Amino acid sequence: MYQNLAVVGATGAVGSIVRRLLEDRRFPLQSIKFLASQRSAGSTLQFCGETHTVELLSPDSFDSVDLVIASTPDDVAAEFVPWAVQRQAVVVDESGYFRMMEHVPLVVPEVNPEAIENHQGIISSPNCSTTQMVVAMKPLHDAAGIRRVLVSTYQATSGAGQAGERELLDSTRAALEGDSYQCSAFSHPIAFNLIPQIGSMKYQGYTSEEMKMVHETHKIFDDESIKICPTCVRVPVANCHSESITIETERRVSADEARELFAAFPGVTVVDDLAQGKYPMPADGSGKDDVFVGRIREDLSCENGLTFWCVSDNLRKGAATNAVQIAELLVAAKATT
Amino acid sequence: MYQNLAVVGATGAVGSIVRRLLEDRRFPLQSIKFLASQRSAGSTLQFCGETHTVELLSPDSFDSVDLVIASTPDDVAAEFVPWAVQRQAVVVDESGYFRMMEHVPLVVPEVNPEAIENHQGIISSPNCSTTQMVVAMKPLHDAAGIRRVLVSTYQATSGAGQAGERELLDSTRAALEGDSYQCSAFSHPIAFNLIPQIGSMKYQGYTSEEMKMVHETHKIFDDESIKICPTCVRVPVANCHSESITIETERRVSADEARELFAAFPGVTVVDDLAQGKYPMPADGSGKDDVFVGRIREDLSCENGLTFWCVSDNLRKGAATNAVQIAELLVAAKATT
Repeated sequence: MYQNLAVVGATGAVGSIVRRLLEDRRFPLQSIKFLASQRSAGSTLQFCGETHTVELLSPDSFDSVDLVIASTPDDVAAEFVPWAVQRQAVVVDESGYFRMMEHVPLVVPEVNPEAIENHQGIISSPNCSTTQMVVAMKPLHDAAGIRRVLVSTYQATSGAGQAGERELLDSTRAALEGDSYQCSAFSHPIAFNLIPQIGSMKYQGYTSEEMKMVHETHKIFDDESIKICPTCVRVPVANCHSESITIETERRVSADEARELFAAFPGVTVVDDLAQGKYPMPADGSGKDDVFVGRIREDLSCENGLTFWCVSDNLRKGAATNAVQIAELLVAAKATT
Repeated sequence: MYQNLAVVGATGAVGSIVRRLLEDRRFPLQSIKFLASQRSAGSTLQFCGETHTVELLSPDSFDSVDLVIASTPDDVAAEFVPWAVQRQAVVVDESGYFRMMEHVPLVVPEVNPEAIENHQGIISSPNCSTTQMVVAMKPLHDAAGIRRVLVSTYQATSGAGQAGERELLDSTRAALEGDSYQCSAFSHPIAFNLIPQIGSMKYQGYTSEEMKMVHETHKIFDDESIKICPTCVRVPVANCHSESITIETERRVSADEARELFAAFPGVTVVDDLAQGKYPMPADGSGKDDVFVGRIREDLSCENGLTFWCVSDNLRKGAATNAVQIAELLVAAKATT
């Protein structure tokens, strides 16, 4: 089981990375197929030295498939995921559509691997901005109980898909040459600018992206008492999200202790030497799978506060890597039962 | 008095704006001279339709000058300001050199205009990241007593002078063309990247820029009990700083009340309609004198908390405009005594 895989959204920004990760991590496979919508079906791609033709996503696509890794828009997921589940496949879904449904585990393998046990055919991977934050929160939460989180994000354009990244590059080129540019991926110019809105208006002045950070974090930690105040901002960076995070814990944690907790935690890499100009930056984090943490210091405004800077590739740990890790968890759980 | 003006650093990014502001605001003048270091002395510039030759900064420059507006690096200010003060001129200084000295008022005219009264020849204008924050804090502090501030900045490259802005444009052009670029204004690449360090390491893992936000805010409000936790980040924006600010007040302030307080406060413009995609952005704030506030909402993580997004042109309100406003305060105070 879990050896007959379908990758849905195989030609997208995240799907392409999923493909590379499956190769690099030698995911155990008997068969693999690549599925996409009308626009990409029929194109070919390489996997493990062989050429595959991308097939059109349809209900029959999931015959003799037992595992699906999917990165598609919400509306596509809403339609096709039930087709796969009806055919007994387990779907690791990166869309937002199923995440908050009660019977759907929302999983970050470093944080709540036990949650996969109760799946009913669908396991969701969180939104990119949530995933890196909860990985960074986890060692501190285990050690000292996080009660409050304040987070301001610096989110890359690839979070809006290939079109977002392309718009950053094209509109920046136009700006440098004094040409006009009609934006479409974003509702405002992103070249040399910041857009303090990601998603739509959702709740009491917060956006949908911000409320995802609240609700998904509560679900992943299975603890709605953690108080969270997010501000999500799009920045003119091609790929790799950054977050300025301040937390309050039940007991005081020194910067040194926090640094040790981070360093010992799987999936976190500490880059923290301000005197030497070393800290995580998106240019360094892009293309890597870890969550990078630096600028770790005690909060000058709160006894039990800590503040730090967190960088992670939103297409990798924020999406593709996390999904492949969930699939690996499923394989490992099967092997031990 | 205060009608014989010298503008020091007249050819720099801030000095050029000072010049334009003096024209636009019809600053009352009997004479004006423009001073600069060796590199720019001898060049000519236009002021009120006349051509002026930039003079070399020397002790004698301040003979028959009674007011100085200066934007120079700290080391230059340290040398020349005493020359001017010895000759009875009053210096409005934008450098960081004198700001925290006890006998030097640190003034933002909307916030602590009364502080100019006690000057002994030098009045300092705060660091750009502090100025816009204290303007936004002031109406809330007056109404409800701010006890704590958490701020994450998104600071433009022009904060590092003309060289910083030029490096952003040149290195971005190089990145788009796949060319290599040797950075000099910044210690890391800024094109499509973020640098979570501004200034040098100063105190318990905080940078000098971050500690300026703490100490200068305390001095301006004459209240060291306000707790402040800053994170300062350089972003690939040419001009205009942004800040994600969360405050805690002694009594609860609703988002609606905060919006009214901001709207009624001089120097603040509210741009806050998320449903319509309206909020402050650096592309809109650049070239304007106000502090722009939006995304005003109640903090989901704290009963007495408020969070908002604040944008202001760091060369204008963050430097030139604030200095010219201080000079205007001096003129007005003289007129009433």
